[in-house]
Amino acid sequence: MTARRFDSPRDAERAFYDALESNDIDALMQAWAPDESIVCVHPMGAPLNGRAAVRDSWQAICRSGQQLRFNVVELQYDESDHIAVHVVREEITMGREKPKVAAMVATNVYRRGEDGWHMVLHHASPGPSGEQSTPDVTLH
Amino acid sequence: MTARRFDSPRDAERAFYDALESNDIDALMQAWAPDESIVCVHPMGAPLNGRAAVRDSWQAICRSGQQLRFNVVELQYDESDHIAVHVVREEITMGREKPKVAAMVATNVYRRGEDGWHMVLHHASPGPSGEQSTPDVTLH
Repeated sequence: MTARRFDSPRDAERAFYDALESNDIDALMQAWAPDESIVCVHPMGAPLNGRAAVRDSWQAICRSGQQLRFNVVELQYDESDHIAVHVVREEITMGREKPKVAAMVATNVYRRGEDGWHMVLHHASPGPSGEQSTPDVTLH
Repeated sequence: MTARRFDSPRDAERAFYDALESNDIDALMQAWAPDESIVCVHPMGAPLNGRAAVRDSWQAICRSGQQLRFNVVELQYDESDHIAVHVVREEITMGREKPKVAAMVATNVYRRGEDGWHMVLHHASPGPSGEQSTPDVTLH
Protein backbone atom coordinates (compact mmCIF):
# COMPACT_ATOMS: atom_id res chain seq x y z
CA MET A 1 0.00 0.00 0.00
CA THR A 2 1.35 3.40 -0.94
CA ALA A 3 1.90 5.63 2.06
CA ARG A 4 -0.37 8.64 2.11
CA ARG A 5 1.31 11.99 2.44
CA PHE A 6 0.05 14.71 4.77
CA ASP A 7 1.39 18.23 4.53
CA SER A 8 0.51 19.23 8.09
CA PRO A 9 -0.23 17.62 11.45
CA ARG A 10 -3.82 18.83 11.14
CA ASP A 11 -4.23 16.99 7.83
CA ALA A 12 -3.02 13.76 9.41
CA GLU A 13 -5.31 14.31 12.40
CA ARG A 14 -8.33 14.88 10.19
CA ALA A 15 -7.57 11.70 8.25
CA PHE A 16 -7.26 9.76 11.50
CA TYR A 17 -10.67 10.77 12.83
CA ASP A 18 -12.34 10.54 9.41
CA ALA A 19 -11.09 6.97 9.13
CA LEU A 20 -12.44 6.14 12.58
CA GLU A 21 -15.84 7.50 11.63
CA SER A 22 -15.77 5.35 8.50
CA ASN A 23 -14.43 2.23 10.27
CA ASP A 24 -11.75 2.22 7.56
CA ILE A 25 -8.73 0.45 9.04
CA ASP A 26 -6.53 0.96 5.98
CA ALA A 27 -7.14 4.70 5.88
CA LEU A 28 -6.64 4.87 9.63
CA MET A 29 -3.27 3.16 9.47
CA GLN A 30 -2.16 5.51 6.69
CA ALA A 31 -2.46 8.37 9.16
CA TRP A 32 0.13 6.64 11.35
CA ALA A 33 3.84 6.82 10.63
CA PRO A 34 5.14 3.91 8.55
CA ASP A 35 7.55 2.68 11.18
CA GLU A 36 7.67 0.53 14.27
CA SER A 37 8.22 3.29 16.81
CA ILE A 38 4.54 4.24 16.95
CA VAL A 39 2.74 3.99 20.30
CA CYS A 40 -0.99 3.86 21.04
CA VAL A 41 -2.58 4.03 24.49
CA HIS A 42 -6.29 3.22 24.46
CA PRO A 43 -8.38 4.34 27.46
CA MET A 44 -7.29 2.32 30.49
CA GLY A 45 -5.01 0.26 28.28
CA ALA A 46 -1.33 -0.58 28.24
CA PRO A 47 0.80 1.10 25.59
CA LEU A 48 0.83 -0.78 22.31
CA ASN A 49 4.02 -0.56 20.28
CA GLY A 50 4.54 -1.03 16.56
CA ARG A 51 2.23 -1.12 13.57
CA ALA A 52 0.96 -4.68 13.97
CA ALA A 53 -0.19 -4.24 17.57
CA VAL A 54 -1.65 -0.81 16.86
CA ARG A 55 -3.45 -2.05 13.75
CA ASP A 56 -4.90 -5.08 15.54
CA SER A 57 -6.33 -2.90 18.28
CA TRP A 58 -8.07 -0.53 15.86
CA GLN A 59 -9.13 -3.39 13.62
CA ALA A 60 -11.21 -4.75 16.50
CA ILE A 61 -12.87 -1.37 16.87
CA CYS A 62 -13.51 -0.87 13.15
CA ARG A 63 -14.94 -4.39 12.79
CA SER A 64 -17.39 -3.77 15.62
CA GLY A 65 -19.21 -1.58 13.11
CA GLN A 66 -20.03 1.16 15.57
CA GLN A 67 -21.15 4.43 14.11
CA LEU A 68 -18.82 6.80 15.89
CA ARG A 69 -18.92 10.51 15.33
CA PHE A 70 -16.08 12.67 16.65
CA ASN A 71 -16.20 16.32 17.55
CA VAL A 72 -12.53 17.09 18.13
CA VAL A 73 -11.99 20.19 20.26
CA GLU A 74 -8.51 21.71 20.19
CA LEU A 75 -7.19 22.33 23.70
CA GLN A 76 -3.50 22.88 23.07
CA TYR A 77 -1.35 22.67 19.95
CA ASP A 78 2.42 22.84 20.23
CA GLU A 79 4.28 22.48 16.96
CA SER A 80 7.90 22.61 15.89
CA ASP A 81 9.55 21.82 12.58
CA HIS A 82 9.55 18.09 13.18
CA ILE A 83 7.20 17.25 16.05
CA ALA A 84 3.68 18.46 16.78
CA VAL A 85 1.78 17.80 20.00
CA HIS A 86 -2.01 18.20 19.99
CA VAL A 87 -4.09 17.89 23.14
CA VAL A 88 -7.75 17.51 22.23
CA ARG A 89 -11.07 16.71 23.79
CA GLU A 90 -12.84 14.01 21.81
CA GLU A 91 -16.61 14.34 22.07
CA ILE A 92 -17.75 10.98 20.77
CA THR A 93 -21.30 10.19 19.73
CA MET A 94 -22.08 6.50 19.36
CA GLY A 95 -25.02 5.13 17.44
CA ARG A 96 -27.83 6.99 15.75
CA GLU A 97 -31.16 5.87 17.10
CA LYS A 98 -30.29 6.21 20.78
CA PRO A 99 -26.96 8.02 20.64
CA LYS A 100 -24.63 7.96 23.61
CA VAL A 101 -22.03 10.63 24.17
CA ALA A 102 -18.64 10.12 25.79
CA ALA A 103 -15.74 12.49 26.30
CA MET A 104 -12.08 11.53 26.10
CA VAL A 105 -8.90 13.52 26.44
CA ALA A 106 -6.28 12.63 23.87
CA THR A 107 -2.70 13.61 23.28
CA ASN A 108 -1.85 13.13 19.62
CA VAL A 109 1.76 13.48 18.52
CA TYR A 110 2.84 13.84 14.89
CA ARG A 111 6.28 13.66 13.37
CA ARG A 112 7.44 15.04 10.04
CA GLY A 113 9.43 12.52 8.05
CA GLU A 114 10.45 12.23 4.42
CA ASP A 115 6.86 11.41 3.50
CA GLY A 116 5.24 14.29 5.35
CA TRP A 117 3.47 14.36 8.72
CA HIS A 118 2.15 11.22 10.40
CA MET A 119 0.82 10.25 13.82
CA VAL A 120 3.39 8.61 16.10
CA LEU A 121 1.47 8.63 19.40
CA HIS A 122 -2.19 8.53 20.39
CA HIS A 123 -2.80 8.55 24.15
CA ALA A 124 -6.48 8.64 25.06
CA SER A 125 -8.03 8.53 28.49
CA PRO A 126 -11.51 9.02 29.89
CA GLY A 127 -12.37 12.58 30.73
CA PRO A 128 -14.56 13.64 33.62
CA SER A 129 -18.21 14.43 33.13
CA GLY A 130 -17.68 18.01 34.28
CA GLU A 131 -15.42 20.62 32.82
CA GLN A 132 -13.00 20.84 35.72
CA SER A 133 -11.71 17.95 37.75
CA THR A 134 -10.29 17.41 41.18
CA PRO A 135 -7.09 15.43 40.97
CA ASP A 136 -7.16 11.95 42.39
CA VAL A 137 -5.17 12.51 45.53
CA THR A 138 -5.06 8.79 46.21
CA LEU A 139 -2.70 8.33 43.31
CA HIS A 140 -1.68 11.51 41.61
CA MET B 1 11.64 32.64 42.38
CA THR B 2 14.47 32.15 39.91
CA ALA B 3 13.59 29.70 37.16
CA ARG B 4 15.63 26.54 37.28
CA ARG B 5 17.48 25.60 34.13
CA PHE B 6 17.55 22.06 32.75
CA ASP B 7 19.93 21.12 29.97
CA SER B 8 17.95 18.12 28.74
CA PRO B 9 14.38 16.77 28.84
CA ARG B 10 15.62 13.94 31.05
CA ASP B 11 16.96 16.43 33.60
CA ALA B 12 13.60 18.15 33.77
CA GLU B 13 11.83 14.81 34.06
CA ARG B 14 14.05 13.69 36.92
CA ALA B 15 13.42 16.96 38.76
CA PHE B 16 9.67 16.53 38.28
CA TYR B 17 9.53 13.05 39.82
CA ASP B 18 12.07 13.88 42.53
CA ALA B 19 9.89 16.82 43.57
CA LEU B 20 6.82 14.59 43.67
CA GLU B 21 8.62 12.12 45.92
CA SER B 22 9.61 15.02 48.20
CA ASN B 23 6.16 16.67 48.13
CA ASP B 24 8.05 19.83 47.15
CA ILE B 25 5.58 21.98 45.21
CA ASP B 26 8.10 24.74 44.47
CA ALA B 27 10.64 22.33 43.01
CA LEU B 28 7.88 20.60 41.09
CA MET B 29 6.69 23.83 39.49
CA GLN B 30 10.25 24.69 38.49
CA ALA B 31 10.26 21.62 36.27
CA TRP B 32 7.31 23.12 34.37
CA ALA B 33 7.77 25.80 31.73
CA PRO B 34 7.36 29.34 33.09
CA ASP B 35 4.42 30.21 30.88
CA GLU B 36 0.66 29.86 30.71
CA SER B 37 0.53 27.35 27.86
CA ILE B 38 1.24 24.36 30.10
CA VAL B 39 -1.35 21.57 30.31
CA CYS B 40 -1.76 18.85 32.92
CA VAL B 41 -4.18 15.91 32.70
CA HIS B 42 -4.46 13.96 35.94
CA PRO B 43 -5.87 10.42 35.77
CA MET B 44 -9.56 10.66 34.81
CA GLY B 45 -9.33 14.43 35.04
CA ALA B 46 -10.08 17.29 32.71
CA PRO B 47 -7.12 19.13 31.23
CA LEU B 48 -5.85 21.92 33.47
CA ASN B 49 -4.36 24.92 31.71
CA GLY B 50 -1.88 27.47 33.02
CA ARG B 51 0.48 27.59 35.98
CA ALA B 52 -2.07 28.52 38.64
CA ALA B 53 -4.43 25.64 37.89
CA VAL B 54 -1.59 23.17 37.48
CA ARG B 55 0.07 24.31 40.70
CA ASP B 56 -3.17 24.11 42.68
CA SER B 57 -3.73 20.54 41.57
CA TRP B 58 -0.25 19.38 42.58
CA GLN B 59 -0.35 21.44 45.75
CA ALA B 60 -3.30 19.34 46.92
CA ILE B 61 -1.28 16.19 46.27
CA CYS B 62 1.90 17.46 47.95
CA ARG B 63 -0.03 18.66 51.00
CA SER B 64 -1.62 15.25 51.45
CA GLY B 65 1.82 14.17 52.65
CA GLN B 66 1.78 10.84 50.90
CA GLN B 67 5.06 9.06 50.60
CA LEU B 68 5.11 8.36 46.90
CA ARG B 69 7.97 6.54 45.23
CA PHE B 70 8.20 6.49 41.45
CA ASN B 71 9.89 3.93 39.27
CA VAL B 72 9.73 5.59 35.87
CA VAL B 73 10.10 3.12 33.00
CA GLU B 74 10.91 4.56 29.59
CA LEU B 75 8.57 3.24 26.91
CA GLN B 76 9.20 5.66 24.05
CA TYR B 77 11.29 8.79 23.74
CA ASP B 78 10.97 11.00 20.69
CA GLU B 79 13.07 14.12 20.75
CA SER B 80 13.78 16.96 18.34
CA ASP B 81 15.67 20.20 18.78
CA HIS B 82 12.78 21.95 20.50
CA ILE B 83 10.21 19.38 21.61
CA ALA B 84 10.66 16.05 23.38
CA VAL B 85 7.90 13.48 23.92
CA HIS B 86 8.40 10.81 26.57
CA VAL B 87 5.93 7.98 27.10
CA VAL B 88 6.61 6.31 30.42
CA ARG B 89 5.11 3.78 32.76
CA GLU B 90 4.96 5.15 36.29
CA GLU B 91 5.19 2.38 38.87
CA ILE B 92 4.06 4.18 42.00
CA THR B 93 4.54 2.86 45.52
CA MET B 94 2.47 4.59 48.16
CA GLY B 95 3.20 4.44 51.88
CA ARG B 96 5.86 2.49 53.69
CA GLU B 97 4.32 0.22 56.29
CA LYS B 98 1.69 -1.32 54.00
CA PRO B 99 2.78 -0.09 50.59
CA LYS B 100 0.36 -0.09 47.69
CA VAL B 101 1.53 -0.17 44.11
CA ALA B 102 -0.23 1.45 41.17
CA ALA B 103 0.73 1.75 37.52
CA MET B 104 0.06 4.77 35.34
CA VAL B 105 0.89 5.55 31.76
CA ALA B 106 2.09 9.09 31.23
CA THR B 107 2.97 11.18 28.23
CA ASN B 108 5.38 13.92 29.25
CA VAL B 109 6.23 16.64 26.77
CA TYR B 110 9.14 19.05 27.17
CA ARG B 111 9.97 22.19 25.23
CA ARG B 112 13.31 23.92 24.92
CA GLY B 113 13.07 27.64 25.52
CA GLU B 114 15.56 30.36 26.29
CA ASP B 115 15.96 28.97 29.80
CA GLY B 116 16.52 25.36 28.80
CA TRP B 117 14.12 22.41 28.81
CA HIS B 118 10.88 22.39 30.80
CA MET B 119 7.74 20.28 30.98
CA VAL B 120 4.80 21.66 29.03
CA LEU B 121 2.42 18.67 29.18
CA HIS B 122 1.83 15.83 31.63
CA HIS B 123 -0.97 13.45 30.61
CA ALA B 124 -1.38 10.54 33.01
CA SER B 125 -3.96 7.79 32.91
CA PRO B 126 -4.51 4.53 34.74
CA GLY B 127 -2.76 1.57 33.21
CA PRO B 128 -4.12 -1.95 33.19
CA SER B 129 -3.05 -4.45 35.77
CA GLY B 130 -1.57 -6.71 33.11
CA GLU B 131 1.13 -5.92 30.58
CA GLN B 132 -1.08 -5.99 27.50
CA SER B 133 -4.60 -4.71 27.24
CA THR B 134 -7.60 -5.25 25.06
CA PRO B 135 -8.94 -1.94 23.84
CA ASP B 136 -12.30 -0.87 25.14
CA VAL B 137 -14.41 -1.52 22.09
CA THR B 138 -17.36 0.27 23.66
CA LEU B 139 -15.58 3.56 23.29
CA HIS B 140 -12.26 3.40 21.52
